[in-house]
Amino acid sequence: MDQSLHDFFRKEALDKVRHAMANQHLDALIVSDYSVIRWLTGFSGSTGKLLISPDRCVLFTDFRYREQVALEVRMAETVITTDGYAGELVSGSYSLSGVTGIQSDTMSWDEALRLCGKLDGQTTAVPVASFFDDLRMVKNSVELMHMQRAAAISEQVLELVLPMIRPDVTEIDIAAEISYQHKKLGAERDSFDPIVASGPRGAMPHAKPSAAHFRSGELIVIDTGCVYEGYASDQTRTVALGRVSPEARGIYRIVSEAQQFGFDSARCGMSAAELDTLVRDFIAGYGYADAFGHSLGHGVGVDVHEEPRISSKSSRILQENMVFTIEPGIYLPGRFGVRIEDTVVLLPDGAHSFQRFTKQLVEL
Amino acid sequence: MDQSLHDFFRKEALDKVRHAMANQHLDALIVSDYSVIRWLTGFSGSTGKLLISPDRCVLFTDFRYREQVALEVRMAETVITTDGYAGELVSGSYSLSGVTGIQSDTMSWDEALRLCGKLDGQTTAVPVASFFDDLRMVKNSVELMHMQRAAAISEQVLELVLPMIRPDVTEIDIAAEISYQHKKLGAERDSFDPIVASGPRGAMPHAKPSAAHFRSGELIVIDTGCVYEGYASDQTRTVALGRVSPEARGIYRIVSEAQQFGFDSARCGMSAAELDTLVRDFIAGYGYADAFGHSLGHGVGVDVHEEPRISSKSSRILQENMVFTIEPGIYLPGRFGVRIEDTVVLLPDGAHSFQRFTKQLVEL
Repeated sequence: MDQSLHDFFRKEALDKVRHAMANQHLDALIVSDYSVIRWLTGFSGSTGKLLISPDRCVLFTDFRYREQVALEVRMAETVITTDGYAGELVSGSYSLSGVTGIQSDTMSWDEALRLCGKLDGQTTAVPVASFFDDLRMVKNSVELMHMQRAAAISEQVLELVLPMIRPDVTEIDIAAEISYQHKKLGAERDSFDPIVASGPRGAMPHAKPSAAHFRSGELIVIDTGCVYEGYASDQTRTVALGRVSPEARGIYRIVSEAQQFGFDSARCGMSAAELDTLVRDFIAGYGYADAFGHSLGHGVGVDVHEEPRISSKSSRILQENMVFTIEPGIYLPGRFGVRIEDTVVLLPDGAHSFQRFTKQLVEL
Repeated sequence: MDQSLHDFFRKEALDKVRHAMANQHLDALIVSDYSVIRWLTGFSGSTGKLLISPDRCVLFTDFRYREQVALEVRMAETVITTDGYAGELVSGSYSLSGVTGIQSDTMSWDEALRLCGKLDGQTTAVPVASFFDDLRMVKNSVELMHMQRAAAISEQVLELVLPMIRPDVTEIDIAAEISYQHKKLGAERDSFDPIVASGPRGAMPHAKPSAAHFRSGELIVIDTGCVYEGYASDQTRTVALGRVSPEARGIYRIVSEAQQFGFDSARCGMSAAELDTLVRDFIAGYGYADAFGHSLGHGVGVDVHEEPRISSKSSRILQENMVFTIEPGIYLPGRFGVRIEDTVVLLPDGAHSFQRFTKQLVEL
């Protein structure tokens, strides 16, 4: 990856942040979300705060990350603090005054109270929530390339593990194999704990892998993703071990058609709520409205769940270069579940999937 | 595991919590820390809040966990909310009045502001930080058994992966193998991302595994742990690939003696700071005071880092059945590092380690 291109986009993002700060009359902003810090600076550590003002961008972290910031961070000044960032903020030469926004959705109340106590008298601290959501939704070309690579790794891993699914193997075995192969194939880590849910457990959208053995004639929901260069992937396939019942095949077909319908319907300019409703109505048309209990999808980026949520409650308009999942499901409690999920990027001619893996029912 | 014994200890813990609430004049407490929720109720999910009052203990979570709470939670009422817990808290029959503590170190400022807004007029909401730290330090016999099992799994995995360390293998390969084997051998997950740091990277106490190949003549720091039944393990061994320099062997001997000295010195009734100082002075006696930049250890339990911190800044007194690490290290930047860590339980006759693995230098 050409780092200068990466830096160009990071500078662009920082400009947008400063523009949004000006709109909200913030003289400075203290960022506490590690995803945002990585997005803006490239720093992949998990201790630190970022101070943004009109003329400075300063990353505070501790001695453990001294070598890491030297390797990763080019777009921000870095300060190694020994006694926390708050004291440094007040005593250092950061000229805090006016109004300082503090990212409140990722800082604990306790930490915020202590920070506000320190800043008191120097600047007016105000909580700022959901500040970066809009700014992160539209991806640049470097981000899209990283996400495509993350998706390719996950897909390669899915292909590797499917032949391992047999009746003498457990959900935990396959989930462990998925995490292992993600790392072996170059991902930093899973983007979330793999879901491998067979038979009745497939009816729980967020089932944890169990020590249950796979059984012939059952459906298996496999929902996985990884992180590559800080960017997440997310995909779900439902496969069959052996031959499943005609009812299960029928449900699979409905979900697969619903997923395709969502994919075909996505357009720049439509609302996220509209897309959710279209697919929801499609499933309701088959009588399964109550069996589709979650929203249609969510944005993906440095976080595996970010804006735009593809939900009936969303007020967001879908735009070019947004990346989000389309993942309808039908869940029949105590029996089985089907979910099919692609992550797509929206382009002027419609959605383009990061996944290539078939959405036909695979029988193992 | 006998669930009734588990429940007995959970009830005992809840009694202690209510006693502490009374001491702090809290009429109710809203718990936001998933580790605490698991410790008190057994619920292993990652969405939910726990309300504790003198006569009720109520877990709020959402539909995704309906089946899981039925399996896991016996010591609390459970309520499945569709529109968040805050509305339910206000409109339900929970009779909130007087003063309600809100766990502020694990709730975001943003969420706290919204919750306080809802509770306003019904009860006085106050932030409560570090409320459970003291209550969780002393372990009961069920907790000790789970922690011994977690340690045994990690140790078994260490023995499995050491023979895989060769010059054609990378740190990432071994780290991925460790995570995989933890799950295969019955752990829920890693208690933290495995640290596998060879050569100069061993001088970074929190190095991330890299794509670097192992090199003969280098030391390798391997710091790992897993979670079993909600309880964490934590161990570090530093091993050599081939023959290392006399200097490296000398440093290893100092760290190994320092670790043994810490182990032998730990006694009920002494302060955590005193134990840290003893070992720090031991290392300083060899001229490496500046090369031991972190504290001697930390408590382990449902969190892999909890109280008591074994640090010069701690004011805590070590007591029977506390579990903590003893992990001195010497780090020579740009060259190599050595850390040796056991997790111990303190009993009336001194520390007992959960680890059996040799602390002699292993040459692979």
